[in-house]
Amino acid sequence: MTAPIDPTTLTVGVLGGTGAQGTGLALHWARAGISVVIGSRDAGRAEVAAKEYREATGVDHVRGTDNATCAAESDVVLAAIPWESHAETLHGLAAPLTGKILVDCVNPIGFDKKGPYPLPVEEGSVAQQAEHLLPQSRVTAAFHNVSAVLLADLEQSEVDCDVLVLGDDRDATDVVRALADAIPGMRGIYGGRLRNAYQVECLTANLIAINRRYKVHAGIKITDL
Amino acid sequence: MTAPIDPTTLTVGVLGGTGAQGTGLALHWARAGISVVIGSRDAGRAEVAAKEYREATGVDHVRGTDNATCAAESDVVLAAIPWESHAETLHGLAAPLTGKILVDCVNPIGFDKKGPYPLPVEEGSVAQQAEHLLPQSRVTAAFHNVSAVLLADLEQSEVDCDVLVLGDDRDATDVVRALADAIPGMRGIYGGRLRNAYQVECLTANLIAINRRYKVHAGIKITDL
Repeated sequence: MTAPIDPTTLTVGVLGGTGAQGTGLALHWARAGISVVIGSRDAGRAEVAAKEYREATGVDHVRGTDNATCAAESDVVLAAIPWESHAETLHGLAAPLTGKILVDCVNPIGFDKKGPYPLPVEEGSVAQQAEHLLPQSRVTAAFHNVSAVLLADLEQSEVDCDVLVLGDDRDATDVVRALADAIPGMRGIYGGRLRNAYQVECLTANLIAINRRYKVHAGIKITDL
Repeated sequence: MTAPIDPTTLTVGVLGGTGAQGTGLALHWARAGISVVIGSRDAGRAEVAAKEYREATGVDHVRGTDNATCAAESDVVLAAIPWESHAETLHGLAAPLTGKILVDCVNPIGFDKKGPYPLPVEEGSVAQQAEHLLPQSRVTAAFHNVSAVLLADLEQSEVDCDVLVLGDDRDATDVVRALADAIPGMRGIYGGRLRNAYQVECLTANLIAINRRYKVHAGIKITDL
């Protein structure tokens, strides 16, 4: 038995910390007592966002900087960037991400008049593309299916959903599960090896279709657990 | 507004009605008052299974026959066949399946020493392969993520999970949703167009990984709905 992981001992970087998914998770982690570093291509923009997050949460352990510094100064780094710039962004961060746990939450989804649909990914999945680009990092995949709308609403006491955490490094997936568990209402569940990431990444297309049909902000829960 | 669908007015065929997933759904539908036709390559084997199901459920509206007769005599036909024989089986049934609602629940999943993993499907998904082979049928996809173990346990009063129903024909997906709703505890939810089927088909690999890690029989539920 290993000791339970205390996520408040971690510094979590959020690449794309000014986008919807990154913002929502950063706010919740900050509120849970976790040190957060917002990363952006533009350090000034990241610091403006960090100031907003400090005010929204009433905590001071959120700061903003450029992506490379964010990666270098964090223990765990969330990639919450658009699929279109995924490869380019991570390629440039291989050095500062060496030895770090990377959490990829990027969804390869396109939209047309008929709605959302999955985009093909040459490496098999976005997370496997990250693994390919970052051979010296501990790549995991998680937080794909969490509604950004629900995350943004800090008035809600809980974010009621499960987070599937994928990866081939057990200790790394345990850390990421603890980061999910740190958000009230959320549960981090091991969801398989990285080669099973694509269907979790793309399931967000189904959740968007559900949102449109039923006028909800859908997430998933795992039954019997 | 259309009238609610009464599933007990339907005859449901189950191709592969002697396999685990087909058996479980056939038993629950029979018990819910739905006429069920078990299909198998071997009509004698199908009738043996049907007799077992009549005894297990105490109803008489279950019969067994060959796959082609099963398809011809049913309103809705569930394809609960192995991925390996999917194309061959459906190709031979295009004529009797004309005009029918096909429900594909087949998972394109392989296994090796590291566990389950998704198999590529040339047409994009198993359901899209069915659509390609059966241009005169109304193809939907559903029931991929329901635990066969839980379905087999008729002592359980409920099968507590949601079923994502995919398809481009709204009336057809409404009928299939009613077939999910007919099973106590189960909810049929529209889950997107057929081009979003692959990730739902493959999510079963993640559920199998969860089952192995946590010793459970996992399914999914959609939150906020």
